[in-house]
Amino acid sequence: MTQSSAFHYLAHGGTPFFRLPTATPGEPKGARAVLLGVPTDAGTTYQPGARLAPYHVRRVSALVNGFHPLHRLDPFERLRAVDGGNVVFPPFDAAAMRASVCASVGSVLAAGATPFLCGGDHSITLPTLRAMRDAFGPVAVVHVDAHADTSGPETWGEAYHHGTPLRHALSEGLIAEGGLMQIGLRAPYPNAEAGDFAARRGALVVPAEAVSERGAREIGAILRDRVRDLPCYVTIDVDGIDPAFAPGTGTPVPGGLTPREVFTLLRALAGVRLVGMDVVEICPALDHADLTSHLGAHLLYEGLALAALRVEAGG
Amino acid sequence: MTQSSAFHYLAHGGTPFFRLPTATPGEPKGARAVLLGVPTDAGTTYQPGARLAPYHVRRVSALVNGFHPLHRLDPFERLRAVDGGNVVFPPFDAAAMRASVCASVGSVLAAGATPFLCGGDHSITLPTLRAMRDAFGPVAVVHVDAHADTSGPETWGEAYHHGTPLRHALSEGLIAEGGLMQIGLRAPYPNAEAGDFAARRGALVVPAEAVSERGAREIGAILRDRVRDLPCYVTIDVDGIDPAFAPGTGTPVPGGLTPREVFTLLRALAGVRLVGMDVVEICPALDHADLTSHLGAHLLYEGLALAALRVEAGG
Amino acid sequence: MTQSSAFHYLAHGGTPFFRLPTATPGEPKGARAVLLGVPTDAGTTYQPGARLAPYHVRRVSALVNGFHPLHRLDPFERLRAVDGGNVVFPPFDAAAMRASVCASVGSVLAAGATPFLCGGDHSITLPTLRAMRDAFGPVAVVHVDAHADTSGPETWGEAYHHGTPLRHALSEGLIAEGGLMQIGLRAPYPNAEAGDFAARRGALVVPAEAVSERGAREIGAILRDRVRDLPCYVTIDVDGIDPAFAPGTGTPVPGGLTPREVFTLLRALAGVRLVGMDVVEICPALDHADLTSHLGAHLLYEGLALAALRVEAGG
Amino acid sequence: MTQSSAFHYLAHGGTPFFRLPTATPGEPKGARAVLLGVPTDAGTTYQPGARLAPYHVRRVSALVNGFHPLHRLDPFERLRAVDGGNVVFPPFDAAAMRASVCASVGSVLAAGATPFLCGGDHSITLPTLRAMRDAFGPVAVVHVDAHADTSGPETWGEAYHHGTPLRHALSEGLIAEGGLMQIGLRAPYPNAEAGDFAARRGALVVPAEAVSERGAREIGAILRDRVRDLPCYVTIDVDGIDPAFAPGTGTPVPGGLTPREVFTLLRALAGVRLVGMDVVEICPALDHADLTSHLGAHLLYEGLALAALRVEAGG
Amino acid sequence: MTQSSAFHYLAHGGTPFFRLPTATPGEPKGARAVLLGVPTDAGTTYQPGARLAPYHVRRVSALVNGFHPLHRLDPFERLRAVDGGNVVFPPFDAAAMRASVCASVGSVLAAGATPFLCGGDHSITLPTLRAMRDAFGPVAVVHVDAHADTSGPETWGEAYHHGTPLRHALSEGLIAEGGLMQIGLRAPYPNAEAGDFAARRGALVVPAEAVSERGAREIGAILRDRVRDLPCYVTIDVDGIDPAFAPGTGTPVPGGLTPREVFTLLRALAGVRLVGMDVVEICPALDHADLTSHLGAHLLYEGLALAALRVEAGG
Amino acid sequence: MTQSSAFHYLAHGGTPFFRLPTATPGEPKGARAVLLGVPTDAGTTYQPGARLAPYHVRRVSALVNGFHPLHRLDPFERLRAVDGGNVVFPPFDAAAMRASVCASVGSVLAAGATPFLCGGDHSITLPTLRAMRDAFGPVAVVHVDAHADTSGPETWGEAYHHGTPLRHALSEGLIAEGGLMQIGLRAPYPNAEAGDFAARRGALVVPAEAVSERGAREIGAILRDRVRDLPCYVTIDVDGIDPAFAPGTGTPVPGGLTPREVFTLLRALAGVRLVGMDVVEICPALDHADLTSHLGAHLLYEGLALAALRVEAGG
Repeated sequence: MTQSSAFHYLAHGGTPFFRLPTATPGEPKGARAVLLGVPTDAGTTYQPGARLAPYHVRRVSALVNGFHPLHRLDPFERLRAVDGGNVVFPPFDAAAMRASVCASVGSVLAAGATPFLCGGDHSITLPTLRAMRDAFGPVAVVHVDAHADTSGPETWGEAYHHGTPLRHALSEGLIAEGGLMQIGLRAPYPNAEAGDFAARRGALVVPAEAVSERGAREIGAILRDRVRDLPCYVTIDVDGIDPAFAPGTGTPVPGGLTPREVFTLLRALAGVRLVGMDVVEICPALDHADLTSHLGAHLLYEGLALAALRVEAGG
Repeated sequence: MTQSSAFHYLAHGGTPFFRLPTATPGEPKGARAVLLGVPTDAGTTYQPGARLAPYHVRRVSALVNGFHPLHRLDPFERLRAVDGGNVVFPPFDAAAMRASVCASVGSVLAAGATPFLCGGDHSITLPTLRAMRDAFGPVAVVHVDAHADTSGPETWGEAYHHGTPLRHALSEGLIAEGGLMQIGLRAPYPNAEAGDFAARRGALVVPAEAVSERGAREIGAILRDRVRDLPCYVTIDVDGIDPAFAPGTGTPVPGGLTPREVFTLLRALAGVRLVGMDVVEICPALDHADLTSHLGAHLLYEGLALAALRVEAGG
Repeated sequence: MTQSSAFHYLAHGGTPFFRLPTATPGEPKGARAVLLGVPTDAGTTYQPGARLAPYHVRRVSALVNGFHPLHRLDPFERLRAVDGGNVVFPPFDAAAMRASVCASVGSVLAAGATPFLCGGDHSITLPTLRAMRDAFGPVAVVHVDAHADTSGPETWGEAYHHGTPLRHALSEGLIAEGGLMQIGLRAPYPNAEAGDFAARRGALVVPAEAVSERGAREIGAILRDRVRDLPCYVTIDVDGIDPAFAPGTGTPVPGGLTPREVFTLLRALAGVRLVGMDVVEICPALDHADLTSHLGAHLLYEGLALAALRVEAGG
Repeated sequence: MTQSSAFHYLAHGGTPFFRLPTATPGEPKGARAVLLGVPTDAGTTYQPGARLAPYHVRRVSALVNGFHPLHRLDPFERLRAVDGGNVVFPPFDAAAMRASVCASVGSVLAAGATPFLCGGDHSITLPTLRAMRDAFGPVAVVHVDAHADTSGPETWGEAYHHGTPLRHALSEGLIAEGGLMQIGLRAPYPNAEAGDFAARRGALVVPAEAVSERGAREIGAILRDRVRDLPCYVTIDVDGIDPAFAPGTGTPVPGGLTPREVFTLLRALAGVRLVGMDVVEICPALDHADLTSHLGAHLLYEGLALAALRVEAGG
Repeated sequence: MTQSSAFHYLAHGGTPFFRLPTATPGEPKGARAVLLGVPTDAGTTYQPGARLAPYHVRRVSALVNGFHPLHRLDPFERLRAVDGGNVVFPPFDAAAMRASVCASVGSVLAAGATPFLCGGDHSITLPTLRAMRDAFGPVAVVHVDAHADTSGPETWGEAYHHGTPLRHALSEGLIAEGGLMQIGLRAPYPNAEAGDFAARRGALVVPAEAVSERGAREIGAILRDRVRDLPCYVTIDVDGIDPAFAPGTGTPVPGGLTPREVFTLLRALAGVRLVGMDVVEICPALDHADLTSHLGAHLLYEGLALAALRVEAGG
Repeated sequence: MTQSSAFHYLAHGGTPFFRLPTATPGEPKGARAVLLGVPTDAGTTYQPGARLAPYHVRRVSALVNGFHPLHRLDPFERLRAVDGGNVVFPPFDAAAMRASVCASVGSVLAAGATPFLCGGDHSITLPTLRAMRDAFGPVAVVHVDAHADTSGPETWGEAYHHGTPLRHALSEGLIAEGGLMQIGLRAPYPNAEAGDFAARRGALVVPAEAVSERGAREIGAILRDRVRDLPCYVTIDVDGIDPAFAPGTGTPVPGGLTPREVFTLLRALAGVRLVGMDVVEICPALDHADLTSHLGAHLLYEGLALAALRVEAGG
């Protein structure tokens, strides 16, 4: 038969991110950045559909040009970035997904490149952080979200779903002391314990309202100071941004950040040692006019620019 | 016949608000807060559909957990809140609707509880304020809206529609001297008289642009000072919020408040003697991704938290 | 805490089907029919979301009145039908879902009632048929679908997903000799083996085009003859109907049946010994104007009418 | 002030129907057909919004050219049709609406022209039929609908809403003996009495399934025979057509007619003495891609062609 | 720079059609069928957007498997089909588009393969037919459409837009005597001349209503007889199909064919000497749930099956 | 024939803007402001559809009343504004469109009135600025946009499309020295040269992030100072505003301005000598709940208020 396998939509996911060349995660052909899709929503508790995000973020990312008007560089040129395709795993096996994500991220790191993941639901972040810890030891984590994601240790009969990654990352020692920074939190907690889990373990918690009060630039400076020279991982759940800007997500909460604030936060991190990034919880079936997919593409672009700045600075 | 009556969708309206127990308005089983739906859009001048808002706000409110991350309490626990069902009235009789709303709100108040109404269009606020005046005398009113709602005394052959409740409330003496505060106004007026009606009667008018200028926290403090220890009623027309955040409404006006600003305003009212609240003009047929219904649920939740704070303080 | 558990949306799913009384599956309070929701999409290969179908089918079913204009009876009166709630299972465990469906259906049957299931994806049909076989021995199965659902025995690393239920049902001996009737099939096969699996085991396969050729009434008569007095189970994947009528489904295929044809097919089964029915693969997030949910409700209603006819006839 | 009144959207409703000249209903400038909008949904029991249908049907009717490919004439040329604007009435007064519709239709008839109404909900048909009876005596009525519209005499505290027009028309003697023909009925009845009201008064009831069985051409011939030379009024509730073709309607019922069938029915009426027509229950807020508005425009066009044929034949 | 050119979305258009290998039109690597996208809507008179159809039809075509259940063969295997990419032309130059389409189609034919084009608007068919005539002489044309597409010779200041291709094809002698067959026509004509242009030149015109009357199988047989052994080109404007099934198109007309009827028509052409095919006027921005893109993919698949049958028969 | 020409939707475009009287551009009947539609998207590179914006902005503008609550005047009264209809041109000839726009704008200016244009895509601004230069010499230009629109001089084989108007305006000397002010820019540049073209020619470039930093009021004051007493033209590409507020546009970029910020910027220009304004790139097919059309209407209203202030001041 001349058709490729029916897994095609999972295995490739459409046009490459940002019109970049393609490569395998472990052999990135000299690239310093590898974009990966992780088409899973097996960890979703309410409205599923994030498995299709890599396809649609790739699709609209074709509109993004290269030269960053504020950082004054082209991250695609600087990093020689590639699309490493989608992480491969059997679609009905969440444990295999976690193992495969950990291995793929590890192979990118082993090749000397920085991984940028497009989820998928937030359960992809735990295996990524495991790979980070294996490569760098405990890392700093900048975490944009409406929710603390520290439920658990087991809820609804399962330890590893999209409501628990940060709890496990803290418990498994993947995050440096005081290295967790959570920005945009605002969803009411199921109870005080779950809500305060991270703060009681030294996390900096910046509710959405605090960003209004102090301004994104000031919060960004605080994050930058706190990261110092730790290896820094950025994980952005698009529900950290207000659903007006990101309607395509499964558990929306009004009162979120604006894209401009999140871009300002990311730009304030210029100079950090960015070791990886993910953007998760984009659900295209609930989106309108591709708003959330466009946002996802631009968030990844800002992360790539951060990595490019470090490369430029000899990092 | 084993089916319940075809009025079902009007009489109940789906799952209870916030997964709460149900009760009748007049016998709230010890609850200090009663949520009521008012499925009417008989007072709508342009795009109707608000009659279905109680159903859809209830539906998405199931996603809202209880512990308020900033006020640090669970209003559902504190208030022992209940869903009092929908106010009952014949669907084609607006006068009967007004009478029934006034009576239902009165019975909640008589039982020592605080009513939280989910409209319906803005014409439900006049009978509610009448019940407030009967119970408390003239009250302070915090009114978030794009429009002044002081048209009239009669327009298009009708005195009581969704463009007139505040004019009648002022004329009928339901509002304390200087007690009306209108925030978010921005729609061009039909003429200067209609636009200035409230201000000429002592109302504080805070246009949307003024919220940008001075910040929601400062405006909130001004409101708090003005309310003092008056019984305080909050009425939120979701078109006070920008249509990007609240597309599901019948007469949208660009340039509105953000949800974060409105949450900040409400939180700044902590300590007031909240005697009732409504959220009106949600039109699910025009919504996308349930944005406006989610917003409505969170606005009610913030109001409940205000009431809980007062209860906690012994109010 | 006064809120019910966060599982609420899974455990109840909104207003009861058809404004009926509620009951537990195993104690249906004298009812002869029990409606059950099965909120799962864990077996979905492409676009997920069927887990929310029970909620939305219940919601729009409130519009359906009782008296059937062609069969001239009210099935709700005749059957004293109840909503048995949603089948309960941990959301991340597909094996537990299958066990729980099998047990719930079994308890309905043990109580002398007929189960009507609203999926969920098509993987719920295998455990249902196992319960049928346990109660009645091998049954006749009328199967409306765009796909044969005989992939397997294992694809994508998993034996039990929404593309395999009929293969397993045939292999496990759940279906009587020649008792499988598949109507509406039209999706190109992955290969001839998978496509012909059922036909080679005696199934009657009626492609969508054959329904045009011969007419739904004639096809219905053929089905009726073939069922004879076998216990008969009906399973309707809404993608058997053309996506113009059922856009809310995950793997649409143009060229399908019309609702009128499927209603005619079902009405032609008048007099069969209907032992159960399911309607599956409704995906509300992809629907428009609730078309597919309305269709799901009316399909269940037609099934209930079949059961009522049998009851009326003393069956 | 240089703006026209804020009633503009009600009083005019956008571009004229079919790019026709405009006129007042009572002075149609020699036209033999007058198109009227009736922007009301005050008689709606479930999802409102039909008040905006005249605007949107006018909008898309600009796409319709004039020469009928089957009847071989241009009805706009033959009839010198005009857009008579919207019927004027205070928006919150359903009784005044009924009086105004009756008067406007009467004035069209008095001027020797045929009225074609674009609703609005189905409650506009009763006053129209009253005007017909005043002008012609009892008429034949061809009624396409999913529902019998014979509820009542009073339901939900109101005699005159969109579920009752045909009951009142029968009771008030507006319809000739045996002159009511209902096609497309399929919604389950609330009870046998309401469902059988018309049939027991001599109406011909053709359920949707019967159209499949016998074909639209044969049904059309039966209607044609039954109308004979009675003055004939056609009322089409778009929910008579399947919601796949007419999603923009408030109480959809799957299993309806196709547009092609309804066009065939209408074309089969060639030669009848058409005295008026309405198309009702289009709800643009629930529509997709203007499907239902396009359908409404083409239904009116087919009615105009019928009137033109009669004019051509000297009628 | 490492990004490919910003023309990417025009030049490639996402994942390949049907998960096929890619090739250049003129060097199809031994394939007997070449799929081409033509991303243009420069010839659109009303709602544009067809330029994005090749992208979205490719996207959803990944869902289509290979084995045809009725023809009993896999056209992808039989034909060794390839995706030849998009035809390349400067986006603002309609004349260059026509020249490039003609040349690309010509090169496919020169390589001994059959072209299958995915438009784009209907103006792509004229240059395709010119290439056909150059290769084969005048051809038979099976044309499914709501409109005759014989406006002109120049309208709105332009000879070559989407309302004129068949007029020019007839005038330029591209179609064999009596070789034009138009099926599904139903839009009112601007005037009798434009509407009858083709019929007066020997075309067979089958209005949509005639397909209801005689059935698609009989119409298909008539087409088959009329084609005989002429080289046969098939052009399908998706607005030939009813907008309920194909909402994503710019000039919808209710009352169209069903997909099942069109599939039956195409299957009835088994054995003809198919020399090319196009599917045009899919406008993804107006689509819902990808209905129209799915339909486009299946129409192309049916055409490929026709070509495969001929190959199998040694054609 | 009694229908007006099929160009109707292009030639008129629905109800008049803001319920105003209509006039021809060159004979505005004493009006000081003329609103014009320019229904073209021939210069669009990605998603087309802006040709339908004049229709839909007119439609929703009927909701806008006259009295400006902050400027305290009614611009419609003060200016005696009229709707001048749509600029007329053959739809397939972009050069003719440019000539016609230039001539229509010139005739408005010659009649002593100020033109307000509703595009269409951004390619309409170049001919407008040519007419401005002819009437006033080089002008100041306040340009809100996500993109610099200085690509070129020729891209994709064409000099004049929606990505190039400001480059040509600068090159042709239409803009006064230092008179270009670009606000809201944020899209990554294709390369540094294209991005810096305007800044190197003296333009003030205010990226979106700078508006967050300094506030819209301060930026507005800077613009006001820079304009001084130059004739001032305002051009607003709605993609300058964040796509959450303006989803209906062809090349959205997240991180944009809010409507409130743009209103503040415009209000800060009070007192400038406004000589013309356009709002472009509204694409209704991609809009939701008319958000972008409402925004377009209010932007034009704010511009009219600016002109009215000048008139009031004797300007």
